[in-house]
Amino acid sequence: MIVLMASLRKLLKAPTPADLAAIDPRSTPGLPKAGRKAEDPKAWSAAELARLGTDLAGLQERLYASTRSGEDRRRLLIVLQAMDAGGKDGLVRHVGGVFNPLGLEVTSFKAPTTEELAHHFLWRIRQRLPEPGHVGIFNRSHYEDVLIVRVHDLVPAEEWRKRYDEINAFERELVDDGVILVKIMLHISPGEQLARLRERLEDPTKYWKYNPADVDERARWDDYRAAYDEALTRCTEAAPWYVVPADRKWYRNWAVASLLVEVLSAADPAYPPPDFDVAAERKRLLKG
Amino acid sequence: MIVLMASLRKLLKAPTPADLAAIDPRSTPGLPKAGRKAEDPKAWSAAELARLGTDLAGLQERLYASTRSGEDRRRLLIVLQAMDAGGKDGLVRHVGGVFNPLGLEVTSFKAPTTEELAHHFLWRIRQRLPEPGHVGIFNRSHYEDVLIVRVHDLVPAEEWRKRYDEINAFERELVDDGVILVKIMLHISPGEQLARLRERLEDPTKYWKYNPADVDERARWDDYRAAYDEALTRCTEAAPWYVVPADRKWYRNWAVASLLVEVLSAADPAYPPPDFDVAAERKRLLKG
Repeated sequence: MIVLMASLRKLLKAPTPADLAAIDPRSTPGLPKAGRKAEDPKAWSAAELARLGTDLAGLQERLYASTRSGEDRRRLLIVLQAMDAGGKDGLVRHVGGVFNPLGLEVTSFKAPTTEELAHHFLWRIRQRLPEPGHVGIFNRSHYEDVLIVRVHDLVPAEEWRKRYDEINAFERELVDDGVILVKIMLHISPGEQLARLRERLEDPTKYWKYNPADVDERARWDDYRAAYDEALTRCTEAAPWYVVPADRKWYRNWAVASLLVEVLSAADPAYPPPDFDVAAERKRLLKG
Repeated sequence: MIVLMASLRKLLKAPTPADLAAIDPRSTPGLPKAGRKAEDPKAWSAAELARLGTDLAGLQERLYASTRSGEDRRRLLIVLQAMDAGGKDGLVRHVGGVFNPLGLEVTSFKAPTTEELAHHFLWRIRQRLPEPGHVGIFNRSHYEDVLIVRVHDLVPAEEWRKRYDEINAFERELVDDGVILVKIMLHISPGEQLARLRERLEDPTKYWKYNPADVDERARWDDYRAAYDEALTRCTEAAPWYVVPADRKWYRNWAVASLLVEVLSAADPAYPPPDFDVAAERKRLLKG
């Protein structure tokens, strides 16, 4: 178990320089033998996810308990990026769903509002950071400011070029303040994206997920690829990027849950000692 | 199924005037025969919760989809109140955990900060309302301002006495704006509270949940009971209060999940029609 986990963290880490073209979106790095040989990989993955989910919820509780005294400021922040239909929402549902919602905050960053545009690009990001002991998931993030912004020239080039350094400084600040930062790029192929977008046009209960603009974005695939490669190469000073092959949803869910178990196990949060006199409280409670 | 659901909504509704002393915290209103005869009620409840959870997640998705056009402003807001150790956190974990976290926000209201105290008591509440299509859970709420505030004389009596009317007006405004408001009081006995507090003193992994102040609050049981009876009687103009007998956690989880399925089924949210030309988009996608 420990060996497998350790290998996963290494296996998914983006190489430097990053080159997404060299990573097969249908590959399954680190998949154990039981998964490779499973007759029904989806059922295998669902069962594994239930097991890993129990581990993650337990680690989350220990992290929360450990921060109650105020000294330990650790929290988990998962940053999710992907092309459209890359599986971010599905990942939040399946893997985010294993955490205790009492200490989980999911933020889906959309196109910035007029108010948000009037501020520095990190302003709205800072407002959604998880507090100590909590788990935050960013469904899209500050990386959009060097991805869609770059591809569509939404700001002058000298503006977005500065942002890689700003992001590194920001993430360093977070990590120094106790944020366990896990940045995940869900890596799908153009063919898989096509299949998923078609599905949304074939099922009336999925029409609401379809956005005609996705077709226009799809035509910019190579520009996005170059923007991702640069972000994944340059923004690794404070925390690594993980690239999860995501054409197979069942692998994606298993891989991300396993990665998170590994990261939180390494942080090893502990239940704190009592900050009161246990024997005295027992007496007081029974007398009351 | 429909018959059972309909009966639950009626069975749990607080009578007018409310009288918590007349409701047995160990009772199990509406429990179906299978639950009453189950050899292992906890296992029965867990299996039922998995089934109800699938229904709830499906209803949540339809509610979300239905509000995408912007005309439908409906959202679900669950207000949870209980005495200390009454099971609010456990309910959020078990029942809140069935929702898609992408559209779920849990807010745990603590003792107000200095900034919050400088504003009207509803100020911090308004900031945490769910947006259309989302599900919000208030773990404690504006009702603390007529409960702990009243029991401890934190503001003059003429101040808190006005609040029942203010709460009714506020909740009317929410309901008129599309909020599906479900107010739930988890009703435990003093004996059950004692057992749960003792447990926290006996298990080192639960010390962090123990708060010595809970023992002092416990001594005010009758004052809280009177404050609850008045709130449950007076604040029902815009939405009813439900009292869930909560000494048995397995019943509590089943009852709340069933109640929510009933409420959301009655709202009957629907997937919206496409706001684009499906055939044209199919062509455009395949050409791209």
